[in-house]
Amino acid sequence: MTTVADATVTEVFFDFLCPFAWRGVELADVLRRERGLSFRLRHFSLVQGNHPENPDRKAPTWWLHEQPQGEGGAHQQASLRSFLAAGAAAEQGEEAGWAFTLALFRARFERKAELDEQTVQDAVRVAGLDPERFATDLADEQARRDALAGDLRASSALGVFGTPTFVLPDGNAAYLRFSQLVREAGQAEQLWNLYTEVLHSGAGIETIKRPR
Amino acid sequence: MTTVADATVTEVFFDFLCPFAWRGVELADVLRRERGLSFRLRHFSLVQGNHPENPDRKAPTWWLHEQPQGEGGAHQQASLRSFLAAGAAAEQGEEAGWAFTLALFRARFERKAELDEQTVQDAVRVAGLDPERFATDLADEQARRDALAGDLRASSALGVFGTPTFVLPDGNAAYLRFSQLVREAGQAEQLWNLYTEVLHSGAGIETIKRPR
Repeated sequence: MTTVADATVTEVFFDFLCPFAWRGVELADVLRRERGLSFRLRHFSLVQGNHPENPDRKAPTWWLHEQPQGEGGAHQQASLRSFLAAGAAAEQGEEAGWAFTLALFRARFERKAELDEQTVQDAVRVAGLDPERFATDLADEQARRDALAGDLRASSALGVFGTPTFVLPDGNAAYLRFSQLVREAGQAEQLWNLYTEVLHSGAGIETIKRPR
Repeated sequence: MTTVADATVTEVFFDFLCPFAWRGVELADVLRRERGLSFRLRHFSLVQGNHPENPDRKAPTWWLHEQPQGEGGAHQQASLRSFLAAGAAAEQGEEAGWAFTLALFRARFERKAELDEQTVQDAVRVAGLDPERFATDLADEQARRDALAGDLRASSALGVFGTPTFVLPDGNAAYLRFSQLVREAGQAEQLWNLYTEVLHSGAGIETIKRPR
C-alpha cells in the first residue's frame, strides 16, 4: 500500500483513548475551520504501541487491526471499536468523519462516557450521520480493518509513540502534549505557530519536555 | 540543606556524559556572556537516574555521590570523577567553574577524549585554574560529595530525567534536546526565546517530541 503524501495536508495521528489526542484534534478542527489549514485524521493505537509483544515500536508483530472484537482488555476493545466506527463514519465524507470523531472524543472526555456501543451510536446521531449507511459500512469489516491497518502501518513506520502526533506537509513530525483545551481561533493559531516554529528551528530541536 | 531560589537565575542541570547537555551548557554560556542572562550550573546524574535500583526517579535509593571512586561501570566512574572535579574547579570562583565545565565538555565531545584523570588535568590547564588549589580542593572529598549531593537531591525532587534541563526563575522547567551547536548570540537568543515561549504558552504545553 503506497500513499502519496499531499504537500498541503498535515496528518494528525490520534487514539480515542487519549485526552491529549482529543485536545489535539480539537486544535486541528479549529485551524481547519477558521484558518483554512488542512488536516487528515489518522489512527495510532497506544495499546499496540505499548504492547509487550512489540518491544520495537517501529516493527510491531502484534497489530490491533488483526485482533478479534470483544477480546483483550477494556482499552484494546474500546480502541478497536472506536477506530472501526470512525472508519465507517468517514465513508460518509470528510466532514462526517470529523463530526463523528469530535462527537466520540467529546462523549469520552467531556461527558466521561465509556467507548462502548451505545456511545458510538450516540456519536453517530450527534454527528448527523445516516445511521443505516453507517451500519452497512461498519458491517464491511474487512474494509474497516484494511483502512485501520494502513494508518497503523504508517504510524509505526514513522515511529509514533504517543498522541497527538502531527506530521507536517514537509515531513517534520512531533508529539504535542498540552493540557488546556484550545477552541479560540487566535489561541489555536498561536499554539500552532509556536509548535511549527519549534519543528523548524535551526537548532534542530528534538524534544522539549517538562519533568513530572 | 535549604537553598533559596534566586529570582533572576536559571538553573541548568547537566551531566558530562551527555552531548545534548554539552550543547545546552554552551547555549547558556553564550546567553550569559552576550545577553547578560544568569545561569547556575548544576549536576544531574544519568547513571543515577537510569539505575535499576531507582525505579522512581523522584525517590532514589542509589545515589551517585555515595559511590566509591573507581567502582561501577565506565559511565559511573567517569561521571563521578567529572562532577567532583567540576566542584573543585568551582571553588576558584564562578568563572573558573564555567571555564572548567566548558573545557571538560569540549574535550569529551569535540576531541572525543575519555573523561579520565588526564582529561580532567588537561581541562584544569585549559581553563586557567590554579592546579595546586584545584588538587587541594579535590582532595577535600567530603565537601565535594556534599556539594554533589545537593545537586542530585534538587534534581530528583524536581523529577529531572535528562540533560540539559533548565529551571527558569519562575519555576517552569523542561528538558531541552537539540542537535545543532549554537554559539552565535542571535541564534542562541532565538532558541532561548522559543524555548521559554513554549514553557509559558497558555495552552500548557507539556511535551513536544519528535519520533525517532
